Amino acid sequence: MQILLTNDDGITAPGLVAMYRRLAELGETHVVAPATVQSATSHGITLTTPLLTSRVKVDDAFTGTSVEGRPADCVKLAMQIMPKKPDLVISGINSGANVGINVLYSGTIAAAIEAAFLGLPAIAISLHMGNHPPNYPAAANLALSLIRQIHAAGLNPGQVLSVNLPAMPPGVPPKGVKIARQCTRPWPDSYERRTDPRGREYFWVSTVFSLWTIDPDTDVAALSEGFVTITPLEFDLTNHRQMSHWRDVDWKLEP
Amino acid sequence: MQILLTNDDGITAPGLVAMYRRLAELGETHVVAPATVQSATSHGITLTTPLLTSRVKVDDAFTGTSVEGRPADCVKLAMQIMPKKPDLVISGINSGANVGINVLYSGTIAAAIEAAFLGLPAIAISLHMGNHPPNYPAAANLALSLIRQIHAAGLNPGQVLSVNLPAMPPGVPPKGVKIARQCTRPWPDSYERRTDPRGREYFWVSTVFSLWTIDPDTDVAALSEGFVTITPLEFDLTNHRQMSHWRDVDWKLEP
Repeated sequence: MQILLTNDDGITAPGLVAMYRRLAELGETHVVAPATVQSATSHGITLTTPLLTSRVKVDDAFTGTSVEGRPADCVKLAMQIMPKKPDLVISGINSGANVGINVLYSGTIAAAIEAAFLGLPAIAISLHMGNHPPNYPAAANLALSLIRQIHAAGLNPGQVLSVNLPAMPPGVPPKGVKIARQCTRPWPDSYERRTDPRGREYFWVSTVFSLWTIDPDTDVAALSEGFVTITPLEFDLTNHRQMSHWRDVDWKLEP
Repeated sequence: MQILLTNDDGITAPGLVAMYRRLAELGETHVVAPATVQSATSHGITLTTPLLTSRVKVDDAFTGTSVEGRPADCVKLAMQIMPKKPDLVISGINSGANVGINVLYSGTIAAAIEAAFLGLPAIAISLHMGNHPPNYPAAANLALSLIRQIHAAGLNPGQVLSVNLPAMPPGVPPKGVKIARQCTRPWPDSYERRTDPRGREYFWVSTVFSLWTIDPDTDVAALSEGFVTITPLEFDLTNHRQMSHWRDVDWKLEP
């Protein structure tokens, strides 16, 4: 089995390294990942400038291709440089949950969606950060077990799952697995308004995302309760339910 | 009516300026847009660095707020700096179609989706580039007419439409309006593999996106036939059809 491993935290991120160490048991794992942190870059791609690449050795774990680009660039580029098309694409383990509104912003999830769009089965894996240092090796153990079960249950080409692992402080295992929809409740933004040394105004995001929602059937709620959450995602953004409303309009083209 | 106008081509882009000139007839229009070109930055947001802003006068058209950030940042920030919450958010007119796979990459569409996520009605407007110079004033005339019709038909808070205008060479008006789903067929990437002056390998995207698909009921097909396309979009990326398949798995948590 050929596996592509990528992420949005950069090729040296501890979550990716821990995931690599376990994924190597499952198949021949190639790492093509961003050279630098690409959190919250969503599904951005590089169109007009070159994508610089380097072969880099990370710890004693692997030698991979680092790309000065976005997570989705890495997936596209991997199709050019891997010896054959991967059988599975893993994105992560991300430092931080990708639930609720963050599904839209996440580069980790965008990489998995890009892979699915290209016709591959893909899984994004994210670890919620608690109040204690994250245990990436433990998270990778759990992730590998889940990846095996997902593979056995049949993840088809073009399908993408987003897996979120709870923070798992010592002695507190996850309560179970919940298949949960993405929470779509808006998260209130806050910005600090400041003035730079030259009198120019600037803004700095001060929002702290927390796992809180009043929608009990969502990824946000299940993760906050200590469950592993799994959310199947899609890349058809069409709102099919609204099509007929707009088809009923008697459109006129005269300005 | 208070309107927020943004885009991904930057605050001085001719498509935005032309749209502003017509939108001002519809309501009090505030421009909060990126300082620089942000094409293909998708739904990226700025979390760790400050968002620098400037008040800039563009042509003799308007004075707006330019933001050194992403299109979605502009929408979030506009909520902080507009005198009141907008009644409508317009993103565009983009230089280039946003159909098919480009729906995922587009900053124009991400800005509109962000607005919808924040509970506002939002419309993204994009103009397909033909072989002749684009006529933005004519595109803005048509866009305003469509915006009026959409408003009259009832665009609810949290709803987002993506409108694509055909290239409209002189004497060739659009054939009509089609409500069309997003084409989800993957687009083959191509890269040129090159070597830099120091012997380092790099890649440069050489893909040219064209309006071609074998799926006749999609945005790509309708736009290529010369229709205006309208696609209702959504920001819940959950693939609800796949939920039961994954709920049926007997998940084990032991690694």
